[in-house]
Parts: sequence; structure tokens; C-alpha cells
Amino acid sequence: MKTIDVCLSPDLIHLHNLKDKNVVIVDILRATSCMVSGLAFGIDHIIPFSNLEGSQAMKAEGYLIAGERGGEKVEGFDLGNSPFDYMDKKVVGKKVATTTTNGTVAIEKSRAALNVIIGAFLNITAVVNYLKQRDESVIVFCAGWKGKVNLEDSLFAGALVERLQNDFANECDSPLLVQAAYQSMKHDLVGFVKNSSHAKRLNRLNVHKDIEYCMKLDVFDLVPILKEGKLVLL
Amino acid sequence: MKTIDVCLSPDLIHLHNLKDKNVVIVDILRATSCMVSGLAFGIDHIIPFSNLEGSQAMKAEGYLIAGERGGEKVEGFDLGNSPFDYMDKKVVGKKVATTTTNGTVAIEKSRAALNVIIGAFLNITAVVNYLKQRDESVIVFCAGWKGKVNLEDSLFAGALVERLQNDFANECDSPLLVQAAYQSMKHDLVGFVKNSSHAKRLNRLNVHKDIEYCMKLDVFDLVPILKEGKLVLL
Repeated sequence: MKTIDVCLSPDLIHLHNLKDKNVVIVDILRATSCMVSGLAFGIDHIIPFSNLEGSQAMKAEGYLIAGERGGEKVEGFDLGNSPFDYMDKKVVGKKVATTTTNGTVAIEKSRAALNVIIGAFLNITAVVNYLKQRDESVIVFCAGWKGKVNLEDSLFAGALVERLQNDFANECDSPLLVQAAYQSMKHDLVGFVKNSSHAKRLNRLNVHKDIEYCMKLDVFDLVPILKEGKLVLL
Repeated sequence: MKTIDVCLSPDLIHLHNLKDKNVVIVDILRATSCMVSGLAFGIDHIIPFSNLEGSQAMKAEGYLIAGERGGEKVEGFDLGNSPFDYMDKKVVGKKVATTTTNGTVAIEKSRAALNVIIGAFLNITAVVNYLKQRDESVIVFCAGWKGKVNLEDSLFAGALVERLQNDFANECDSPLLVQAAYQSMKHDLVGFVKNSSHAKRLNRLNVHKDIEYCMKLDVFDLVPILKEGKLVLL
């Protein structure tokens, strides 16, 4: 039977064998929510960079550059890390180079995987359907916050495990843990995530609207996938 | 207000500042359950070692030596890692040197802490009372399994967070996550832990009895603490 495992932090990814597996990158607040929204809104493709310089250098190649550190847009960049930046008519048909505190680092650490796809509550059913149709085992890779485990990414992992439990066997204990937490909190996901440390951090930056939006289920029926270093729609 | 945080794996401990804090070491199956039981049963003190050689060398000093790797007793050692090894009349009044796959590694990585104490379901209320009476913040340090997050240590952390929630503020998201998982599973902790990956691993070694025992609440009203490298009763 295919297996599923959950990696709760980029600092634990060395414990997982990614070869021949599908890896789902999760950074709910807000990198993967941005990627799903932006590609849905008409961005041609997105190139993720783990550092600011990589993203910045793409300006000369005609890319819009997106940069976030510590939750805030980096000065001089075209886009920050709000999904609403990615749903503006200025992005339609454009190429985007992006770097974020956590999400793009997780993508960089997933190079050994067979397929790297982008997951968010916004496209969760599309992700579920993709994984069910494939023959490979799955690692759900939570981007966390600077290495620490965070609530919103863990709850997304729990929601995914719950939806895949008839098709995948748990490889280890993390899937059990996140599924149990999801079951305990699913009656008020938005409420619990608003009380999480990252949401509090973001609230200081005045982005309540972003949090409400990123917790919506199935706004888009699409799956971003990494092809030759570029995120495109399947 | 005092804070509480949970470190879900020894591979994440570098993200925590242990200075001036009380660290609770948790390795339910079975290192910390053994330590609590053995000290309750009359062991004089226990010296934890992160490697086999360290423990083995103490034989010449008159210590009983305990050694476990991969769930099994190491050949030539006096004790394995079953709590019943630690509750035999041969241990009474003796000094023990021990090394295990995960628990003693976590102790080794906690040297920067103000106090290192030993937690298990067997002494959970004693641990709660100790932490409530102290003025310092707390890190609950789950030993996990070779770096991976495990269910039984995470559930103990959740049980501890729940019992301390009126006295400590959560420092980050891990306490929220483990408390939610605990709430979801507390009606049948033994049942869920028996389905965890480590319990399955141990069941192959025929230690059902150990698991049932290690999940018992408040068998002992005592707290082991590390003093000058030795675990003794408070």
C-alpha cells in the first residue's frame, strides 16, 4: 500500500527519504496560498528562490520579483507575501520570481522528490485527487516558522491525512498526531489559527484579511507543480 | 507570565533556548518510565550516557549497567529498557549507568537547562506540581524515535500542557498542537498508543505488558532530577 508521512519542519527533512515520492509543500500563511492564488489568477509561472539575491536577479530577465522576510514585503520588490498581491491584474501573464522566509526554503530542500506540488486549504481537494490518482507514496512537508513547528501547516497536514486515510498507510507517527489535532480543531479552524503564534505575528502586521482568505477551502481546483525549477499548473 | 514550549524531537532542540528554564525529558516507551520506576523502587542514582561505551565503563565502578538499542537489550548488559528490569530486588540500593536510543540523548542535549527533570505518565501529577511551584519557564523535550516525532511522547506533552494551561502561556505553536491531539485521543490513550509506530515496533519484541504499564497515570508521586550528572529523587 502507498504510504503517507508528515515532516513537521524543514529541520527534520533529513529524516525522510524523498526519492520516488510526491512531496506536498505546505506554507499556509502565506507562501503556498500565494502560489495557488497567483497561478489561478494568470501568472505564467513562478520560480522559487531560497535567498533574496536569486529572486532579485530575475528582475533583469523581465520577472516580477516577490520577496518576504519576517512576514513583511522586502523593500524594492514588486510583490510581498499577501495572496492579494498575487491576485492583481498586474500579474496576469507575467513571470514571477519569489523568496519567502519558510516556503521557498522547503521547496529548495525537496529537490530529491519525484514530484513537488503545492498545497493549501485553497486547493486541498485538487491535491487529494492528484495524490489518489498517483501510485507513489507521499511526504507532506510543512514549512513551519524558521524551523519551528506551526499550527496552520500542521492542521493542513492533518486535513490531508484524514482525506487520504483510505488510500495511504501511515509511515510513522506524525500523521496520527496531526490528524488527531485536526479532528480536535476542525469545528473552528479559523478561530484556532487566529490564536496561533504566526497569526499573532501577522496580525501585528495588519493582515487579518489574509488569514481569513488562506483558511478558505477549495477556492481553486488546480495543482501547482515544480517542472524544471518552475512552478506551473498541472 | 511563565511560558511553556514543546520540542517534538532532539533534532529541533537547537531552536530552543534552555538557559534558566526547567526541561522535562519525555521518553514514555520506555527510558523515562524506567527511570521513574527504578528510582521509586530503590535505585540509589542513575547516570545517563548517550553512548554504550560510557555506560559499559561504569561496570568497573560497581554500577549495574543498562543498555538498549533499537528497542532491545544490549548483550552483556545487566538491564535492558523494560520498566520491569528496573523494579526487581536486584536494583535496590544500587547505582545504575544507562544508555538508550533516544532518552539519554535528549538528556545529553539539555545540559544548558537550569533543571532537567524526568517526566512520564507514571509521575505526571508530581511533575505538574513541581513545575507549578517553580518560577521558571518550561520546555517539554520529547525524545522521539531517532529524530522522528512519536505519538506517545507528544501525547504526554499534550497532557502536561493541558494540566499547566492556567499557569503557563504557550511560547509557540507546538503546545497548541499536542494539546489538541491529546484532547482528541485522551478517551483511549492506550488504544491510540498501541497503534503508534513505536508500539508496533515494540510489540514485535513482545512487550505489550511494558506498554500497558508505561501508560498508567500517577503510579508514583516523585520527580527524578539531574544533579551533577546523576538522576536522583528530589
